[in-house]
Amino acid sequence: QDEIDAAVRMLLSLKLSYKTATGQDYQAGLPPRDLTLINNGTTKEEDEDFVDPWTVQTSNAKGVDYDKLIVRFGSSKIDTDLINRIERATGQKPHRFLRRGIFFSHRDMDQILDAYENKKSFYLYTGRGPSSQAMHVGHLIPFIFTKWLQEVFDVPLVIQLTDDEKYLWKDLTTEKAYEYAKENAKDIIACGFDVNKTFIFSDLDYLGTSTGFYKNIVKVQKHVTFNQVKGIFGFTDSDCIGKISFPAIQAAPSFSSSFPQIFNGKENIQCLIPCAIDQDPYFRMTRDVAPRIGQPKPALLHSVFFPALQGAQTKMSASDPNSSIFLTDTPKQIKTKINKHAFSGGRDTIEEHRKYGGNCDVDVSFMYLTFFLEDDDRLEQLKQAYTSGELLTGELKKVLIETLQPLIAAHQERRKQVTDEMVKQFMTPRKLAFEF
Amino acid sequence: QDEIDAAVRMLLSLKLSYKTATGQDYQAGLPPRDLTLINNGTTKEEDEDFVDPWTVQTSNAKGVDYDKLIVRFGSSKIDTDLINRIERATGQKPHRFLRRGIFFSHRDMDQILDAYENKKSFYLYTGRGPSSQAMHVGHLIPFIFTKWLQEVFDVPLVIQLTDDEKYLWKDLTTEKAYEYAKENAKDIIACGFDVNKTFIFSDLDYLGTSTGFYKNIVKVQKHVTFNQVKGIFGFTDSDCIGKISFPAIQAAPSFSSSFPQIFNGKENIQCLIPCAIDQDPYFRMTRDVAPRIGQPKPALLHSVFFPALQGAQTKMSASDPNSSIFLTDTPKQIKTKINKHAFSGGRDTIEEHRKYGGNCDVDVSFMYLTFFLEDDDRLEQLKQAYTSGELLTGELKKVLIETLQPLIAAHQERRKQVTDEMVKQFMTPRKLAFEF
Repeated sequence: QDEIDAAVRMLLSLKLSYKTATGQDYQAGLPPRDLTLINNGTTKEEDEDFVDPWTVQTSNAKGVDYDKLIVRFGSSKIDTDLINRIERATGQKPHRFLRRGIFFSHRDMDQILDAYENKKSFYLYTGRGPSSQAMHVGHLIPFIFTKWLQEVFDVPLVIQLTDDEKYLWKDLTTEKAYEYAKENAKDIIACGFDVNKTFIFSDLDYLGTSTGFYKNIVKVQKHVTFNQVKGIFGFTDSDCIGKISFPAIQAAPSFSSSFPQIFNGKENIQCLIPCAIDQDPYFRMTRDVAPRIGQPKPALLHSVFFPALQGAQTKMSASDPNSSIFLTDTPKQIKTKINKHAFSGGRDTIEEHRKYGGNCDVDVSFMYLTFFLEDDDRLEQLKQAYTSGELLTGELKKVLIETLQPLIAAHQERRKQVTDEMVKQFMTPRKLAFEF
Repeated sequence: QDEIDAAVRMLLSLKLSYKTATGQDYQAGLPPRDLTLINNGTTKEEDEDFVDPWTVQTSNAKGVDYDKLIVRFGSSKIDTDLINRIERATGQKPHRFLRRGIFFSHRDMDQILDAYENKKSFYLYTGRGPSSQAMHVGHLIPFIFTKWLQEVFDVPLVIQLTDDEKYLWKDLTTEKAYEYAKENAKDIIACGFDVNKTFIFSDLDYLGTSTGFYKNIVKVQKHVTFNQVKGIFGFTDSDCIGKISFPAIQAAPSFSSSFPQIFNGKENIQCLIPCAIDQDPYFRMTRDVAPRIGQPKPALLHSVFFPALQGAQTKMSASDPNSSIFLTDTPKQIKTKINKHAFSGGRDTIEEHRKYGGNCDVDVSFMYLTFFLEDDDRLEQLKQAYTSGELLTGELKKVLIETLQPLIAAHQERRKQVTDEMVKQFMTPRKLAFEF
């Protein structure tokens, strides 16, 4: 049954890739009919989104249907009530990622707030797979949001750099993976985290220096079968045993006893994980195991995917330099990439655009602005003007360029100030500025 | 194909269990015909020995056919030439385990000697799965031999206590498994190891305190697929991912970089592993992976299995108190167990015994004496006298009782002197009395 499920899963994914590339349904034995249809963004919406930690695919130019994903994953929508409750609990205006549905789904966030309102603390856990030295703006989303959460709730934060995962999945040495982890840590630190409240760790390094981490890993590994990881992650018999057991390593930081130096060995501190929705399979597994090893289930806040410049069908990829704006890009590169590659929801001619207006739902420049433009009123004005045809594609792109250029320049400035010594401080297991 | 292989493997094992228990070949639908045949040691030899790290089964009362095992596993016999060479290299009389074929098989021991003769050192690695507090005499075999090897070659020794394995396979907490590890360490230390030359470690503990161990584990895990561990260890899709990835944890101590504190971070120190032959599958896998991760293949010395009191068909089991002599047994318990349970190769009546003689090949008391009686001449005399019928079963058992009682009393005396502080010393990662 499991093998058939896995094969069906793979088949559906291949069919979807085919459809995304050709705009046509796959028919066995028939070649695609007309390749000019590739990526034209006009194929009608299908219920065929594919989301796992390695692949995000949809045939819809608006991107993945997140409401359907909530139903499929069994999570809960972040609704106005929950956002208002976060505002009341923290006394702070909700972050634009909440106001705009960028963090759109959760698990047990209400429990976190129940406990918080009763003066019971929690901690934040997020992470990154350090696959190359260069990070793109999409990689910042969980960190920008996590930083805000940490500030408004005033709680400890642990950030996992899964250099072991990258070693297992890519053609990399452990040394190189660890080097990427330290380089990525600089970009993360440049987001402005407080060293007294934040612990950043590389798996390759921390696993060998923590008395609690491996014990939790082996506990998770005892309670998850190959059948389960096959069903959840689509592993096959040809996968290496490192990949097969890796999910336990991403699971273990959800338990406070993995960080005895921070939590004084306490086992029952609740964990809240902000992450992109593609990471949910790891934490569904974790939540399934938690009660069986006497640990609280981690709560989650899920974000949408950050779209590639070419359109919302896929996640950005660090391996394609033109699919995204990198944190190392110069103002000129930013301008060129946006002007040249950002998929436009505008019309083919100025006349048509003025007459019919642009489509913000598929326009990547507008999508990026929803992530990075703080001013709600300005964003709404841009939407109206673009939809009515008053604002042209080039003008919208100019707003994005002028928004991103100073943000990235400021990031680069802060990153320059991150020394190796600071990285070492953040990555040293130690007590943080909290009592447990 | 893999699933079928695994099913066939299980079927063969079940058929063999059936035959071992009933003395009859299994036929579907038919009950065993005559249960008085159980364990009579007279079923004819079959080429059906089953050996893996968890199960050792043979239908032959003489025990496993080790010559066939050498062919099947692809190892080499320890012949007179190799024993003589060890004698020349060390200037010491070979240990009785070598003289008597108890360590009977090897991989690359000639390379160890080549290097040793050229003043190139190596290290020893052996281990134990700490499943309960009480160890039996059979558990001492690898340690007695390893101690001798360490003394004659003067090399560092690492001893792995796989408490994580026991946690994964048994109904145990991690705390309990670690407690067993520390208790077992006392019996191991009581064998007389030198704290300046020996490092004993629990996986649960050391994995979180070593900067090198996890890196080697993940390297092995990257280079072994589920298909491979399925073929080697018979794992199935229903096994937990902890079991599936565990072989890498037993493999990693074969590489000196797992012990940077001992070897000064050096990666190329050759390893020699004395162990019972049932552990060979782990190290066949390790030797397969080693060149692909730039590490030397470990060499091996394999021992036969220590027979249960009830006969050589199976390995002793720590969970059946009457299957073995425990290191905690009193002189009286030793006497009673041997007299009551040691399978005899003698005849049914004194008259028959005097006339036809006893059979040393299946007599467990004689087998035990080959393990523990140091004097070669005396052992030969006993064999001749027993085979000729001159020596009766009760007399042979008396020799064994008088050999084991003082050995075990002396062990108990030494064990009493092993303090928690000493255990802590042995188990603390540190430099040993060697320069690398």
